[in-house]
Amino acid sequence: MTSIFDQDLPRDAANFAPISPLSFLERAADVYPQRVAVVHGPLRRTWAEVDARCRQLASALQRAGLGKGDTVAVMLPNVPAMVEAHFGVPMAGAVLNTLNTRLDPEAIAFMLDHGEAKAVIVDPEFAPAMQKAIALRRDARPLLVVDAEDALFTGAAQRIGTTTYEAFLAGGDPAFAWELPADEWDAIALNYTSGTTGNPKGVVYHHRGAAINAISNILEWDMPKHPVYLWTLPMFHCNGWCFPWTIAARAGINVCLRKVEAKAMADAIREHGVTHYCGAPIVHGLLVNAPDGLKSGLPRGVKAMVAGAAPPASLIEGMETLGFDLTHVYGLTEVYGPATACAKHAEWDGLDIGERARLNARQGVRYHLQRSARVLDPQTMAPVPWDGETMGEIMFRGNITMKGYLKNAKATQEAFAGGWYHTGDLAVQYPDGYIKIKDRSKDIIISGGENISSIEVEDVLYRHPDVLAAAVVARPDPKWGETPCAFVELKVGAKLTAEEVVAHCRKHLAGFKVPRAVVFGELPKTSTGKIQKFELRKQAGSAAAIDV
Amino acid sequence: MTSIFDQDLPRDAANFAPISPLSFLERAADVYPQRVAVVHGPLRRTWAEVDARCRQLASALQRAGLGKGDTVAVMLPNVPAMVEAHFGVPMAGAVLNTLNTRLDPEAIAFMLDHGEAKAVIVDPEFAPAMQKAIALRRDARPLLVVDAEDALFTGAAQRIGTTTYEAFLAGGDPAFAWELPADEWDAIALNYTSGTTGNPKGVVYHHRGAAINAISNILEWDMPKHPVYLWTLPMFHCNGWCFPWTIAARAGINVCLRKVEAKAMADAIREHGVTHYCGAPIVHGLLVNAPDGLKSGLPRGVKAMVAGAAPPASLIEGMETLGFDLTHVYGLTEVYGPATACAKHAEWDGLDIGERARLNARQGVRYHLQRSARVLDPQTMAPVPWDGETMGEIMFRGNITMKGYLKNAKATQEAFAGGWYHTGDLAVQYPDGYIKIKDRSKDIIISGGENISSIEVEDVLYRHPDVLAAAVVARPDPKWGETPCAFVELKVGAKLTAEEVVAHCRKHLAGFKVPRAVVFGELPKTSTGKIQKFELRKQAGSAAAIDV
Repeated sequence: MTSIFDQDLPRDAANFAPISPLSFLERAADVYPQRVAVVHGPLRRTWAEVDARCRQLASALQRAGLGKGDTVAVMLPNVPAMVEAHFGVPMAGAVLNTLNTRLDPEAIAFMLDHGEAKAVIVDPEFAPAMQKAIALRRDARPLLVVDAEDALFTGAAQRIGTTTYEAFLAGGDPAFAWELPADEWDAIALNYTSGTTGNPKGVVYHHRGAAINAISNILEWDMPKHPVYLWTLPMFHCNGWCFPWTIAARAGINVCLRKVEAKAMADAIREHGVTHYCGAPIVHGLLVNAPDGLKSGLPRGVKAMVAGAAPPASLIEGMETLGFDLTHVYGLTEVYGPATACAKHAEWDGLDIGERARLNARQGVRYHLQRSARVLDPQTMAPVPWDGETMGEIMFRGNITMKGYLKNAKATQEAFAGGWYHTGDLAVQYPDGYIKIKDRSKDIIISGGENISSIEVEDVLYRHPDVLAAAVVARPDPKWGETPCAFVELKVGAKLTAEEVVAHCRKHLAGFKVPRAVVFGELPKTSTGKIQKFELRKQAGSAAAIDV
Repeated sequence: MTSIFDQDLPRDAANFAPISPLSFLERAADVYPQRVAVVHGPLRRTWAEVDARCRQLASALQRAGLGKGDTVAVMLPNVPAMVEAHFGVPMAGAVLNTLNTRLDPEAIAFMLDHGEAKAVIVDPEFAPAMQKAIALRRDARPLLVVDAEDALFTGAAQRIGTTTYEAFLAGGDPAFAWELPADEWDAIALNYTSGTTGNPKGVVYHHRGAAINAISNILEWDMPKHPVYLWTLPMFHCNGWCFPWTIAARAGINVCLRKVEAKAMADAIREHGVTHYCGAPIVHGLLVNAPDGLKSGLPRGVKAMVAGAAPPASLIEGMETLGFDLTHVYGLTEVYGPATACAKHAEWDGLDIGERARLNARQGVRYHLQRSARVLDPQTMAPVPWDGETMGEIMFRGNITMKGYLKNAKATQEAFAGGWYHTGDLAVQYPDGYIKIKDRSKDIIISGGENISSIEVEDVLYRHPDVLAAAVVARPDPKWGETPCAFVELKVGAKLTAEEVVAHCRKHLAGFKVPRAVVFGELPKTSTGKIQKFELRKQAGSAAAIDV
C-alpha cells in the first residue's frame, strides 16, 4: 500500500526547482546588483553587469544556433570572459568545455573532435595554438570561433575567428530569459583529464553536482558573504574547483589574474583586500619564498586552500609566518576538484609544527556534501582497518562525483565498479578516520618485492631546508626490479650534493627506501603546478642521474 | 536525437545520493565525534553519543514495527530527546510529527488521527493533555506511547506509556545501519498549521527540502563551524526552522532550554558562550527589556534571528545596545520556516536608527537556496510593479516549499495554483526588490471601501515609548463596514489613555486609518510569541473596548 505521504503530493513548479549554480548568479544580481563582481586591472564590473553580460552570451549563443547539449570550448586564462563563460554557456543550455591553456594543438584538436565542440572562445595568447588545432580537426562540421580580446594581454594579438567576444555579446539580449535545465542531471561542463597514458577522458559534470560542490566550498571554508577571491587557480582546472559558482553564491569579488607570479599575487592581495585563494603547493610557495620586501604589508588572516600534493611542513610554517590560514583539500577532476578536506581540530593547535604538518598533510575526510570517502580494498570492496598501515584505494560516492566519461561507457563502468568511484590513489585510513595517500597506484615503486611509497620519500626530501621541490619515481634496476630515483630542485643559492641528499634520507627512512640515484634541476610541472612524473620517469635512466 | 551528454551517463550509487539532513549527523559523528553536541543542565553529550542514541531510537522504532511512511508524533519541549527525534525517527524511515506543546487534547487527538500516528513520545509536562487526547482518538489502531523522562522537569511526573524513552532506546542497536531514503522526495516531517479557521492542515516536508533549508540557514547567517545554538525557538515549530539539522551540519552545540525566560536565556548565553539563537520579537524583547543586572556580562556579537513579526525600531535599538546582531527573516510552515531574509547592505550602516529600522522591517528577499519569492497579483499572476505601493500576494517557488498538505489534494492544489505557493500575505515590493508585508489577506481592514493595513497601524503604535505590544483588528461598523480597533499592552509602570493613543496615531496616519477603539491589557499570544488576532477579533466588539 502506498504510504499516505506518497499520495497526491507530486512535484510542481511551486515546490521543486532543479538545483543549479545558475541560480546563484541570479540571486547575486537580484540582491546585490551594485556590488563589484569582477576586478581585472582597472576594470570593475558589478553583479548586475556580469549578469547582463552572461545573458547576452547565452542569447548570442542561441541566436548562433547553439542549445541544449551543445559544447562550447574555451581556451582562456583567468579573465572576466572566463567567469562569464561559467554562467553564459549553461544559461544557453550548452556545456562548457574549458581547455587547459598549455595543451598542444594535437591535444586540443582531439578534444574539439571528441567533445563535438560547436563554438570556441579563445584568448589571443592561445590563438596560434588554437588555429593549428582547428586545422587538425577531423570533424567537418562548422565551428564558430570567437576571439576574446583582453586589454591586459601585452603580446601581438592575432585574430583567428569570425567575430570578437565583445561584438558577439553585443548581438545578444542582456535581458535574455534563460531557463534552468529541465533536469538537474543535465550536463553543465566537460573537463578532459590530463591523461598521461592513452587519450584524455572527458569528465562530464552536471548542474546538481556543480551546485553542491560550490556550496561545499563555502561550508569547508566557513566563507562569509562577499569574499574577495584571487584567481590563482586556473579556471580551466575542474572549473576552478567550482569556485566561479561559489563566488556567485556568496556575491563575492572575482579578482582576475592572467598569470600567477609572486609580485602580481602580493600586489593583488594588498590592493583588493583578498580574503581567499587556492592553488597547488607551488603557488603558495611562490609567496612564502618571495623576498621580504615583496611580502611587506600583506594582510593577515587570508585563507588559502591547497591541493594537488600535501603541503610540506616548511610550507605550513611559512604560511603561518605570513599569518595565512591554510586548508588542505584533495580531489580529482572526476569529483569536481576538492572532495575531501583535512578538517582541523582545536586540539591540534597546541602541537609542534612537525606534528601539525604530519596531521595536516593527510587528505582527511569527505567534503561536506559528498556522501562518502573511504579507503577500500579494490578486490573485495571491504573497508581497510583504520590502522594507518593497511593500504587500499580511495573511493568516493555521492553527489560530488562526475556524471561519467563522455562517450566512454566502458571507462565509466570501470570507474564506478561496485557503486564507488575508484580514484586509483592508494592510501591508508587512520584511527580518526582520516585518509592519507600513500601513492598513485602507478607511482608506487616495487623494489625487491617491497612497496615503496614515492610520497613517503618525497616527504623526507621536503624536510631538508635546501629543497624547494622534490619528486621520486621508479628506475628500472636489473637486480631489484625498480629502485627509487630522486629529482631535487634546490632553493636559490642552496648547494647540496647527491651524497648529502642520500645521507639525509638515511636518517629518516628504511634502507631499501633510500634513493639510489639523484637528479638535480628544475622539475617539470603542469599548468596547475603538479610535478609531471611521467616526464621524470623518462629521465630516470638518463645521464643526468647521479648514482649513489 | 539524444545529446551525447545524455548517453550512457546514468545515475549510480557512485555518483548519486539522495539529499538528506541525516547525512549531516553522520558526518558530524564521523569527523567530530568528541565535540559536544547537546547541553541540557549538567548533561553533555558528544556527536558520537547523539549519533549512537539516534541509531538506537531508529532501531527500536523498527523493532517495534515502524518503518517507511509511518508517523511518530512527539510532544516535547526543547530537550535532548527532541533533538534526537529529528534524526532517529527519519533514520527508521518514519515521519516526525512535532506537536505544539500548547495544544488542547481535542486538537492533539485530531492530529494523531489525521496523521495516523503509530507512536507518540511525550514529555511528563504534557502527559496529562496527551492522555486525554489518546482517549479522544477515533483511530482504533494500536499506538505505542513512550514517556520521555527529563531530569530537569520539576513537576509531578505522570507515566502514561508502556515504556520510557531511555528503556525504549536501550532496546535499540547503537550501531544500527540506517539507510538514506530511497528518494529524497520522501517525507521527513509533518507539521500542522495553527489553523485559526477550520481543521489544521498537515504540512509535509521532504528530505530534500529539509536539507536545503538547513544549508540556507548557514548561508544566511554566515554560520561558521561549531556554533553554540540556544534553543529559544520551539523545535515543534517548523522543526525549529530546520535548525536541528543546521546545527548537525555545522557540528555545533544544541543548548537545550525547557522554558524561555529572560534569566534562563541570559544565564545560558553567558555560561555556554552562545553564538546564535532565534525567536519571535517577543523572545528578543525578553532580553532587551530585562533589568540591567540580568544583562550584565552578556557577550557581544551574538547573532539573533527574528521572525513572526517585523522587529520594531525600539527592539532593533535595544539589540544594538546589547551588541547583538539581528537578522530579520520571514516564512511560514509551508516553506520550512524562514524563506526570505532582509539581507543587509553595508551602506545601511550609516543611516539613522529610524531609517535602518524601516529598511530592516521589510521581509526582504528570497532565502539563499529558494528559487523565487515574489509579490504577484493573485488574479493575473503578474508581478506587481516594484513601487513600494502596489499590493499583491507573496508567493514562493522552489525547493524550500512543502511537499503539500497531507490527505488534502484540494488544499494542495489551491495553495500551488499557477505553480506558485500562495502565502495569503499581502505585500508590496520596493524598487530594490525587497518585499514588505502589508497584511495577511484576512487581517486587512476595509473601512469605507478603503484598505487599511493592520501592520501599518501597529508599526505606529510600537513607535510610542510606552507600548510593549500592539495589535490592530477590524471591528464591525454599521457605517464604515469595518474600523480599526487597537489592542495595546503597556510597559510595566507606563500609563496611557485611549485619547493619547489616538492622538499619537493621528500624528503619523491618515485619518481613516486611526483606531476608533482602544483596548488595554495583555495580548493573547501563541506558543511561538505570535499575537492571536482571531482572539482579538472576538473581543473587538466587547465592553472592554474604549470608543474614541
